[in-house]
Amino acid sequence: MDDLAAPMSRLVNELKRLPGVGPKSAQRMAFHLLGVPREDAERLANSLLGMRETIQLCIRCNNLSEGPLCHYCNDASRDPKIICVVEQPNHIITIERTRQFRGLYHVLHGALSPIRNVGPEDLKLKNLLEQLRDGEVHEVIMATSPTSEGQATATYLARLLKPLGVRVSRIGMGVPIGTELDYADEATMMEAMDGRREL
Amino acid sequence: MDDLAAPMSRLVNELKRLPGVGPKSAQRMAFHLLGVPREDAERLANSLLGMRETIQLCIRCNNLSEGPLCHYCNDASRDPKIICVVEQPNHIITIERTRQFRGLYHVLHGALSPIRNVGPEDLKLKNLLEQLRDGEVHEVIMATSPTSEGQATATYLARLLKPLGVRVSRIGMGVPIGTELDYADEATMMEAMDGRREL
Repeated sequence: MDDLAAPMSRLVNELKRLPGVGPKSAQRMAFHLLGVPREDAERLANSLLGMRETIQLCIRCNNLSEGPLCHYCNDASRDPKIICVVEQPNHIITIERTRQFRGLYHVLHGALSPIRNVGPEDLKLKNLLEQLRDGEVHEVIMATSPTSEGQATATYLARLLKPLGVRVSRIGMGVPIGTELDYADEATMMEAMDGRREL
Repeated sequence: MDDLAAPMSRLVNELKRLPGVGPKSAQRMAFHLLGVPREDAERLANSLLGMRETIQLCIRCNNLSEGPLCHYCNDASRDPKIICVVEQPNHIITIERTRQFRGLYHVLHGALSPIRNVGPEDLKLKNLLEQLRDGEVHEVIMATSPTSEGQATATYLARLLKPLGVRVSRIGMGVPIGTELDYADEATMMEAMDGRREL
């Protein structure tokens, strides 16, 4: 990147760190950002800084939120008797796209992984267990990724939660094995939600 | 994007405006930026703002620059007798990648386009003409894109510059017609530099 003026080169280097952005697309983005109106560039920078400052985790489900409760937990039309457990906040979007699930979510912010040294104590489980102890929840759907980590997490949680008297199910394995949940298309995800099996 | 917390949704909307970034990759980027250390996110935002504030045009060739002269014009090892004319600053990078051209550049910041109402008065030509009048330059290579706009610009400039006693050449048409110069691979671009024909 010696061919670029230093401020451009610095920006290209930062853009290259984004997922799916190689040197060529980083360069195209940087030149694009040089050409846009000043307000547009500032809006991007400020939305990035603002997002980092204002985002917080929902105290009930750990989803990303602007206030103490996320907009699913705040939505009285959602069914609090059924909770869908996901690894990451963005996995909620994949499920919402089916427009079929009307329950609430729980975000673990991780999955069990002996290789990466992630154990049960690293998952955000405390608020889920507290809710289940209230006895209002009838079913917990394990919508962790169909990877070995996600499978291990689902199995572990099933063993942990069933003694609390709750039904624990797993999304149907229509979702292709070995991929991350965010790549699932609507149809596959709908199939997977429909075909869930009790654990 | 109703499913995302508002600060995330705002960032996704700004990221989607980048070239080659769709809703899904914007979302992946936003979640990535949420997960990186705070300093990394700040460095991206600041390099963007910093680039916008500090970048200027080289007074000699109109390339992007941190100071009055860009690093090509500042480099005593480059040959000032041969000037390569390009439409945009990023096209310089495509040519530099061949590691063959050792002359200087001139950036027009545009190409003639009757449809988009871009005429000769919209191209940055003044400093090029001043240099040619000094009589030091022997050859001007037209490396404008092989599009109808780039061709028209090359033809126009050849007619304008030849009466000044300078040799005007055109890069070889090995570069596939109808595409933008930034997509050319090194080999094609090297071929095009070698096969340049006098206009």
